Amino acid sequence: MSINFFDCHRAMLDRARQAIAERGYWSPFCETPSASAYGETAAANGKAAFEAHLNRVFELDQAGTIGLLGNEISPYGPALGIRYPKVDIDQLIRGMNTAGLKWKKAGPQIWTGVALEIVKRLNERCFEMAHAVMHTTGQPFMMAFQAGGPHAQDRAVEAIAYAWEETRRVPAQALWEKPQGKHDPLRMQKSYRITPRGIGLVIGCCTFPTWNSYPGLFANLATGNTAIVKPHPHAILPLAITVQIARTVIAEAGYDPNVVTLVAHEAGDDLAAELSLRPEVKLIDFTGSAANGNWLESNATQAQVFTEKSGVNQIIIDSTDDFKGMVNNIAVSLALYSGQMCTTPQNIFIPREGIESAEGHVSFDDVVAAIVKAVAKVTSDPAKAVELLGAIQNDAIINRMAAAREIGQVLLDSKALEHPQFPAAKVLTPLLVKAPDNKPVTEEFFGPISFVIATADTAESIALARKSVQEQGALSLSAYTCRADVKEALCEAAADACVALSLNMTGSVLVNQSAAFSDYHGTGANPAANAALTDSAFVSGRFRVAQTREPA
Amino acid sequence: MSINFFDCHRAMLDRARQAIAERGYWSPFCETPSASAYGETAAANGKAAFEAHLNRVFELDQAGTIGLLGNEISPYGPALGIRYPKVDIDQLIRGMNTAGLKWKKAGPQIWTGVALEIVKRLNERCFEMAHAVMHTTGQPFMMAFQAGGPHAQDRAVEAIAYAWEETRRVPAQALWEKPQGKHDPLRMQKSYRITPRGIGLVIGCCTFPTWNSYPGLFANLATGNTAIVKPHPHAILPLAITVQIARTVIAEAGYDPNVVTLVAHEAGDDLAAELSLRPEVKLIDFTGSAANGNWLESNATQAQVFTEKSGVNQIIIDSTDDFKGMVNNIAVSLALYSGQMCTTPQNIFIPREGIESAEGHVSFDDVVAAIVKAVAKVTSDPAKAVELLGAIQNDAIINRMAAAREIGQVLLDSKALEHPQFPAAKVLTPLLVKAPDNKPVTEEFFGPISFVIATADTAESIALARKSVQEQGALSLSAYTCRADVKEALCEAAADACVALSLNMTGSVLVNQSAAFSDYHGTGANPAANAALTDSAFVSGRFRVAQTREPA
Repeated sequence: MSINFFDCHRAMLDRARQAIAERGYWSPFCETPSASAYGETAAANGKAAFEAHLNRVFELDQAGTIGLLGNEISPYGPALGIRYPKVDIDQLIRGMNTAGLKWKKAGPQIWTGVALEIVKRLNERCFEMAHAVMHTTGQPFMMAFQAGGPHAQDRAVEAIAYAWEETRRVPAQALWEKPQGKHDPLRMQKSYRITPRGIGLVIGCCTFPTWNSYPGLFANLATGNTAIVKPHPHAILPLAITVQIARTVIAEAGYDPNVVTLVAHEAGDDLAAELSLRPEVKLIDFTGSAANGNWLESNATQAQVFTEKSGVNQIIIDSTDDFKGMVNNIAVSLALYSGQMCTTPQNIFIPREGIESAEGHVSFDDVVAAIVKAVAKVTSDPAKAVELLGAIQNDAIINRMAAAREIGQVLLDSKALEHPQFPAAKVLTPLLVKAPDNKPVTEEFFGPISFVIATADTAESIALARKSVQEQGALSLSAYTCRADVKEALCEAAADACVALSLNMTGSVLVNQSAAFSDYHGTGANPAANAALTDSAFVSGRFRVAQTREPA
Repeated sequence: MSINFFDCHRAMLDRARQAIAERGYWSPFCETPSASAYGETAAANGKAAFEAHLNRVFELDQAGTIGLLGNEISPYGPALGIRYPKVDIDQLIRGMNTAGLKWKKAGPQIWTGVALEIVKRLNERCFEMAHAVMHTTGQPFMMAFQAGGPHAQDRAVEAIAYAWEETRRVPAQALWEKPQGKHDPLRMQKSYRITPRGIGLVIGCCTFPTWNSYPGLFANLATGNTAIVKPHPHAILPLAITVQIARTVIAEAGYDPNVVTLVAHEAGDDLAAELSLRPEVKLIDFTGSAANGNWLESNATQAQVFTEKSGVNQIIIDSTDDFKGMVNNIAVSLALYSGQMCTTPQNIFIPREGIESAEGHVSFDDVVAAIVKAVAKVTSDPAKAVELLGAIQNDAIINRMAAAREIGQVLLDSKALEHPQFPAAKVLTPLLVKAPDNKPVTEEFFGPISFVIATADTAESIALARKSVQEQGALSLSAYTCRADVKEALCEAAADACVALSLNMTGSVLVNQSAAFSDYHGTGANPAANAALTDSAFVSGRFRVAQTREPA
């Protein structure tokens, strides 16, 4: 008899349900790569497990395999040399449809239990995953461990908890008894079956392959759908490991592992578009460019499409009672993973007359100089800096930096650092450019690129930021103010443009960060994303209810 | 100070929440037009109120009024002569955007309270509404009272309860406190604001203008959106009354009544398409043809689109222990409102070798003869028959009947009846045609038109019905069987094609009927509809959450 994974993880599920209702801090996982949490040998074993993948065929034994492909190169230098299954889409989908026949009847407890067990196994392989994420995305190791491991797993558990919350609300049975005055009541026995939609396609990105893909993947599994995971050609390994673990657990639970498959592909082919328009694909979760996301929203009308696209994030500086905390926080925000985060601020609005601080008035130039100095400082020591910056994921970022320099005066130029362990790594410090006054840079400059914009006053900063959010979209809006009226205006503008607002971030929490169970990532109501991680809307359309009634 | 409508209706809301969780029978309203429930003078007053609308301008005083239009003709004969505001869309939307500014900040308690108060006022005008529905749709009076009044109001309360269930789950505030080992925890204060999407467009139909429109309308209001109600040109009055009541309550609550507007229009113009593509329209609820619904799903990609379209409903007859009950139930199902229901069965599958019954084997011909006889019987006395049949809504139905006769042998021809009170009413009894063996009629024949199809056996009946549901869609599937294995196969086929299954309906409950709080109307997973009335998915995407966080 197979293990009842649902009972195994019931306590975690219930705690997760409490967390999403209260939205305070909680995580079922340890976010630090500590021996006490993960075991004395975990670090070494994880590294070895990662290295064992290199220059080998990644075995998945899934339906429709017709060859091999894969050409990942670590942003830290070496080619990974891993070959993944190349699939025939027709054969794959036939295999998945067969797998789905039994899986879709398993019901919410099985789906939820299996999904949670997959997450638990992923957690056990955090170190292996950290290296896989690091050497595909260019993230520094600590970030790759956290964002690629426990934080991504948090997002998975969150999605599973939301899915359970929705499926459990549909009763399996009901007795409908309608009074008929003096006559006997009408009585109907009814039953309700949760019916998944079909195949869910999860399209990953090359910077956060697990964190951004897990919500959709696990929401699909927890509602009985089958799932195709399509990684970015630059970042296949983290999702290949994920799919491998998922298939193992599904098989252990007594189901056909083709419930979850990997579709790796070559850069530049049109496989993602082809898959997205397949009639069997009823759900699409996408992370990537605005162009591709908008295309999916407009064209894949046979599916429900959940997108996180690009945005232009903003910082508004009005006033602060902790000037040093502010500039340090901003500096780390800009430097973290070389700005290769969908939440990294791009435009920094500062009134041209300067700002008020606890130490008195600070001129525009002095605010800028302080930020420049702080950025320079956190990136001055290469050995420390690389642990913050990571490596540049791809060359498009380098081209974008050249374009950014044309926009205005370079306040702080980017410089190349040598990575002490990985001499071939492309490591670049942030570039800071002064854009023309009152003109936020409306195009997204993804990468270590930010712009300072002088405005007439904070009211203008807010107006420009709001407009930019409404027109280009944003995943984060950060602001610094000590004034109640400005705070009120910021809250109104943020609610109006529907963007998450972070106020007065002067400590170690960064605007870039989004905590599962508490922070909604994206709102779904500005052009940066049509969905939020995670809310009811993210899960409730992933299944339907088939009802039967008969006289009782 | 304005009345706290939320507190007034809190008990009803909580009871409705219980009802949607348990899905047994419940209604807050009396479904019979009784003096004890509605008052001694309600019937006369309601009739007078309806008659007072005739040959007059319907006053709404809403934004963007630039003229008058309207050309409704009662299916019972007389032209209604009611003139409604003709609106300029740009002006209207400007007015609604202004109204939305305050409304969207009101929050879930206000939205929910106002929505419930509107429903309560609608209930007080049930008799007026019954006449309005009767004389636009052609429904018989009792059905117009029930389906147009309390049953539609039930669906409204259901949608409001679902919306409240979703909005209340987002806390207004949270303290996020993350442990930092020996150091002080990180502490962030967070707030979450429910943010509506914008304008919701509700597109009504000419057969159930209130019942089909209320879920979308009230789901929109209860989540803080503004709403444009666009009635079918044949059935404006029921929704005009609804909008008038809504505007009155909204104004009493202290908000701009342009939160809800009516956009009446002439048949044949392209106003519905124009409105549907407006960027301000973020939600669309549609009831109508497959062609128009599919067009919206594919083209109105700026909005979330919820559709109920046409379908081809089925009855599968395998065996029965109540032959008389079965044929009578089927006869009433086919005759009710002249088959002008989205749930009326169209194809009746019967094994050509006949069926088993409590009285022994019944041949195919005898089953058909019994159904024919039962239909003839329930429509034999014109005075009684008109209270079941109502009147034909429009001439397209008559043309369709002519086409249906070409498909096969006419088993029971339709005949015209004279309505005792309304000599100009077009009253037609059901037409029953024998389609070629094994060939369900895949095109929808909306109206009093059904087909009998002989099959090799029940397994073939199930296979044909399943295929038809998957390809053409269906809102109802009815089946009669005494065999456990057949029941199991039916349940599997229905779940697989995701259609609501009604088994062994031999009493007074009809497959046509869908009870709020208990029956999901539509599944959203076959071509007849992309949404269900009502589930979480129907409401959860109608709002987003704007979050603010700052160090605590």
